[in-house]
Amino acid sequence: MNVTVHGRTRHYRTVTFDAGANCVTLVEQRLLPHEFRLVVTPDFGATARAIRDMVVRGAPAIAATAAYGLAQGARAFRGGSLEKFARHIRGVYETLKAARPTAVDPVNAMDEILAHLSAGQTVAEQQALAVAAAEDFAQSSVRHCQAIGDRGVGLIREGMRILTHCNAGWLACVDVGTATAPLYAAQARGMHFHVFCDETRPRSQGATLTAWELAQQRISHQVIADNAAGLLFARGQIDLVIVGSDRTLGRTGEVANKIGTYTKAVLAKRHGVPFYVAIPLSTIDWKLTAGRKIPIEERDGSEVLGAWGAVRNPRSAIRRSKSASPVYVRVANPTSSALNPGFDVTPPELITGLITPAGIFRPRDLWRKRARLGGPI
Amino acid sequence: MNVTVHGRTRHYRTVTFDAGANCVTLVEQRLLPHEFRLVVTPDFGATARAIRDMVVRGAPAIAATAAYGLAQGARAFRGGSLEKFARHIRGVYETLKAARPTAVDPVNAMDEILAHLSAGQTVAEQQALAVAAAEDFAQSSVRHCQAIGDRGVGLIREGMRILTHCNAGWLACVDVGTATAPLYAAQARGMHFHVFCDETRPRSQGATLTAWELAQQRISHQVIADNAAGLLFARGQIDLVIVGSDRTLGRTGEVANKIGTYTKAVLAKRHGVPFYVAIPLSTIDWKLTAGRKIPIEERDGSEVLGAWGAVRNPRSAIRRSKSASPVYVRVANPTSSALNPGFDVTPPELITGLITPAGIFRPRDLWRKRARLGGPI
Repeated sequence: MNVTVHGRTRHYRTVTFDAGANCVTLVEQRLLPHEFRLVVTPDFGATARAIRDMVVRGAPAIAATAAYGLAQGARAFRGGSLEKFARHIRGVYETLKAARPTAVDPVNAMDEILAHLSAGQTVAEQQALAVAAAEDFAQSSVRHCQAIGDRGVGLIREGMRILTHCNAGWLACVDVGTATAPLYAAQARGMHFHVFCDETRPRSQGATLTAWELAQQRISHQVIADNAAGLLFARGQIDLVIVGSDRTLGRTGEVANKIGTYTKAVLAKRHGVPFYVAIPLSTIDWKLTAGRKIPIEERDGSEVLGAWGAVRNPRSAIRRSKSASPVYVRVANPTSSALNPGFDVTPPELITGLITPAGIFRPRDLWRKRARLGGPI
Repeated sequence: MNVTVHGRTRHYRTVTFDAGANCVTLVEQRLLPHEFRLVVTPDFGATARAIRDMVVRGAPAIAATAAYGLAQGARAFRGGSLEKFARHIRGVYETLKAARPTAVDPVNAMDEILAHLSAGQTVAEQQALAVAAAEDFAQSSVRHCQAIGDRGVGLIREGMRILTHCNAGWLACVDVGTATAPLYAAQARGMHFHVFCDETRPRSQGATLTAWELAQQRISHQVIADNAAGLLFARGQIDLVIVGSDRTLGRTGEVANKIGTYTKAVLAKRHGVPFYVAIPLSTIDWKLTAGRKIPIEERDGSEVLGAWGAVRNPRSAIRRSKSASPVYVRVANPTSSALNPGFDVTPPELITGLITPAGIFRPRDLWRKRARLGGPI
């Protein structure tokens, strides 16, 4: 999507691959929103470290990064032995997989690349196939997001006020995003609307990443405290909610997403406001039979007990301090601890619809429609 | 309540008056939870500035501070003319009133002091009456909180997990607090329980003040993100909610309190968890006929867009940096703005009961019971 640097607006993706130089280029997400910088990783080891250190985050984005990293590793091989090449590729695969050991998307992405290699008769052919397959994977990831946008754009009416939670934007994907896709599609059709970004404590992805994306894209928006949505619902100031999903249960229609999502769904239901979840097909879990079986990650308490930001005068927010790197401040009482669950589960009765690349579905219909959604037959 | 400084535990009040030295002593709340310090104001002008600069905050606490400030101003008068004394007192009154122009509690407190003065025949007698009346006011404020504790303690059972929001603790009062009063009363009876403190963004009074109070009092507690309560309710990990109130409508039973309170009430209702509001009688508004007529303060966006804290390493929270004074960090995207309403309104159907010094009432019964609650006859 668009980013304006030094007054010049250009289109960027979170991850791109330069096959000539055999380099991956990533948006350095740890400095956002305070500074926009690109990071070039010259070899697959550096790409793996960028995944591990969260230069790039978001399941679709790290999947594409791992796919490119595998192609990058493949192209770095010198020699003609297919056997040695296969061993080398296995090492690259394991290195990239170990970078985020609990994530399934990078593994699925790399498996897809590997499946294409056997069509090559020589190392050079297999190397070329790896690059082409990685490029296809990234393109198809973008097309999926665009399809979510095309399916979801019909929900947006001129002048609407839309609530979103966390960041399910292009920074979490290769481009376009999931929850943001209908917004960007509506903007492309010339529509005007206003977005309330939940700040999304404790990691504040709404205040940092989503607000940054919308500002770059020149979409009208305001950050609100997570506590403020209740009042806005009660005043009739929210017309639509669109959020993303970390895992959607194909058998039950339950949605696991960033902590706080469930609360917004409860409020939306009480106030009769439509609540939609944008989901790429890759996040549908066809196996798990109940939301209560989803393991809820307990994260470090320091996230709740403090905040990361750029030191500055509260009244002159635009002016930068010398260093843009965020610092940690302890907000809470120094001798208190915190409980910090990362996700919650929203039941299907609170969800108006799931926006998928294949159409909008009621959550309870997922299993019946599983053939259209890439589910088990 | 108790505070431990350099290993020594002592009982403190947020505000005390030394009639001999004619000084007011305040807990410096702007440094909490990072540092505990007392501030002594040597004259009523300094006391007014402490109110204005929010060294002390919370309606009951600033009411008692203004009452003491008025007595302090009265005692500073030199001379025998009752007429000149009356003019002097009027100046003191206006100075203290102007320190927080929208607050009604300091004005009501000072009016109560003034009503006692006419019984004095000389300046010296009126000065003595002012000091006695201010002391009575503060003592009665503490007794009210203790009565809330005595009424509310029956709601607490051994092993309960209790959610609270914002700070309605002793730091907001003279001592004991309102929402915290039942907790401290239960602790005094030897009961054990666990408190979840909503961090209460954007000003984080739960993470800073309530957590600090509970830690000093050695009550088991954890800070949670405002987003996390939904999951805890869904898991059955919250047995009771007690919050405070900024304004309670005597005619409707609606409660205006810190932004986010309404959301917790909605969640409690959905999960069948009792939701109680502790209210001092002074916060009951007997005139307003509908919650939607309560003006909701729109506060500065910088509160939502950043955070105040002490710069430190997130992994070594206990160790102090050289300066304990909190600094502001900008968390959100620098070019985004925020919407920052300070309060929301909870309707009576979501409130199990109001804990008052005169007993626990259903919110809709307030008007019928108004005689017992100091309402209009």
